[in-house]
Amino acid sequence: MPATIPVILSGGAGTRLWPISRRLAPKQLQRLTGERSMLEDTLARISHLDGEAMVVANVEQLGAIEGQVPPGTRLVGEPVARNTAPAAAAAALLSDPEDVLVVLPSDHHIADTKTFRAALESAIGGARSGHLVAFGVVPDRPETGYGYIVPGPPASSGRLIERFVEKPDLQAALGLIESGALWNGGMFAFQARVLVDEMARHAPAVLEAVSKSVASAKSQGSRLLLGEEFGQAPSLSVDVAVMEKTDLGLVVELDAGWSDAGSWESLYALGQSDSSGNVILGDVVTEDVKSSYLRSDGPLVAVLGVDNLVIVATGDAVLVTKRDRVQEVKRLVERLEGRSELSIPPPSSSDR
Amino acid sequence: MPATIPVILSGGAGTRLWPISRRLAPKQLQRLTGERSMLEDTLARISHLDGEAMVVANVEQLGAIEGQVPPGTRLVGEPVARNTAPAAAAAALLSDPEDVLVVLPSDHHIADTKTFRAALESAIGGARSGHLVAFGVVPDRPETGYGYIVPGPPASSGRLIERFVEKPDLQAALGLIESGALWNGGMFAFQARVLVDEMARHAPAVLEAVSKSVASAKSQGSRLLLGEEFGQAPSLSVDVAVMEKTDLGLVVELDAGWSDAGSWESLYALGQSDSSGNVILGDVVTEDVKSSYLRSDGPLVAVLGVDNLVIVATGDAVLVTKRDRVQEVKRLVERLEGRSELSIPPPSSSDR
Repeated sequence: MPATIPVILSGGAGTRLWPISRRLAPKQLQRLTGERSMLEDTLARISHLDGEAMVVANVEQLGAIEGQVPPGTRLVGEPVARNTAPAAAAAALLSDPEDVLVVLPSDHHIADTKTFRAALESAIGGARSGHLVAFGVVPDRPETGYGYIVPGPPASSGRLIERFVEKPDLQAALGLIESGALWNGGMFAFQARVLVDEMARHAPAVLEAVSKSVASAKSQGSRLLLGEEFGQAPSLSVDVAVMEKTDLGLVVELDAGWSDAGSWESLYALGQSDSSGNVILGDVVTEDVKSSYLRSDGPLVAVLGVDNLVIVATGDAVLVTKRDRVQEVKRLVERLEGRSELSIPPPSSSDR
Repeated sequence: MPATIPVILSGGAGTRLWPISRRLAPKQLQRLTGERSMLEDTLARISHLDGEAMVVANVEQLGAIEGQVPPGTRLVGEPVARNTAPAAAAAALLSDPEDVLVVLPSDHHIADTKTFRAALESAIGGARSGHLVAFGVVPDRPETGYGYIVPGPPASSGRLIERFVEKPDLQAALGLIESGALWNGGMFAFQARVLVDEMARHAPAVLEAVSKSVASAKSQGSRLLLGEEFGQAPSLSVDVAVMEKTDLGLVVELDAGWSDAGSWESLYALGQSDSSGNVILGDVVTEDVKSSYLRSDGPLVAVLGVDNLVIVATGDAVLVTKRDRVQEVKRLVERLEGRSELSIPPPSSSDR
């Protein structure tokens, strides 16, 4: 009997969430939104599926991941980051061809698990009927930073995918929403066999390199370390490599309080704001502060007479910016390349 | 031959310069403006005088002070803070009656030592002729947070003091400057005997309590610890206790780049600003930041897309505020009463 296997992709570095997110402890492993990390939340969200979960991540993050996953979880180590298509291909090649894979990023926030699971059932149904299924998130704003999926006629448990639109301008985004387009949430379901077939057709270079790396993979306890050939795969997303090209695309609607939790502004929106519109976490004291995201994972932070700021302090680094500039944190952080404050987790307050 | 004795008052807590300034390591002991602390700068500025310096400070700060003063400096410990009049009275009672005392705060910045020393010579001359001499700082703005001295007719090496005006409103400040009034810099020169006589006349309760505390003082190496009776003295400034009441007041003009270095805005003004108008000290990285004071004595501080902020980070605390709100830091800090981040010096980066 073929299984339904959660495949969690944990490749992201979460640079825009520095200084909490670090290369060796990226955002999906941090307690950014609650008591659990987003990886733990993601695993809990699909814990009812019958297959044992597989986590695909950069080999240098496996140690940190191991402490957050249930026993029996398969850990697949990528020698280098190559975006999501090679990771999904590896997961498919490591599964029974008839298995359905549910491929989820490790670093998204979903408020409503019940609704998510209902959409997941539809997606699994679509996958069993031979489709490559994408989750289409119901938009709540004309976001220009996301990709959109334009649905076509109904089929199986969803609607056929008419086309993908990558990062539209505002005018186009408004038109897309008007016409019923959905955000591409980067979550997929498909049979292993179908993905491999479609990848052979549309992205053979990915499949070839990943096949070799699976053949030369080495086991190490619960870990499987993919061979160096993985690095020869083109760095492509599942969307670009397969979904935009296949005739088998199906989209299932998801309206469950989804957030990519990708920036401090996203976390501000996810947080509980007080009567001054501030989201405050940790040892923070304020006076006449409004509409700000204020977080300390270490030092005492005292803030006076400002508004619309993001202030994030750890034991070794502090970020101060405006809420509407948070996308540029990535660029600022790139300038810090090579510094330990980018890669090594900050000292916790209890260490000091 | 009577000596000229520098008396440095180091009683201030420097609350507005938190988180660098701490109760056990207040601003005058910190390297805020250069390679030396302001106490060290102050001592260097009067090192040419023949008398050995005396530093009057809260007893709990003497340990930190001891490491910053030349050998032979007398350290006088106050059991409690009682403003400047009791401290000056103690210094006078501990000196030869004919000695001239030059009483200086430990936490002011003076850019031009040569001009300061010339004014000092005039002040000492005035003191030797029996006056209580105040230094009147030539104003460069209609500051409403300072006291003003209105000079009268010339006498001795300065001008007689006509009256004092405490913290005028803006209109009054403009009028005062127009009429040639000077800022009260809180720096004085007088013979010990003259101060004691005038204090007996105008502030007998101060003199009585301080006399008892000098009588019961205990030596401890180079330290002299004033007795508990010191605490019975009314908490008064030299200005209020004596200068505003005496007929012997003389003012000597000082135009030497004086700053009370009392707030982060003062330190911004004293600092070297770059082409974006930022004053940056320590491990700070900026992108599109303007007109800000950015200082780290510990963590990496990354700042993006803001202006006119003050950001000061230490190993255990971070302050973020607007440059025009820095006076309110004192009030914010009062809310932190009892926390170690107020009293104990922050861990230095080399400790971590």
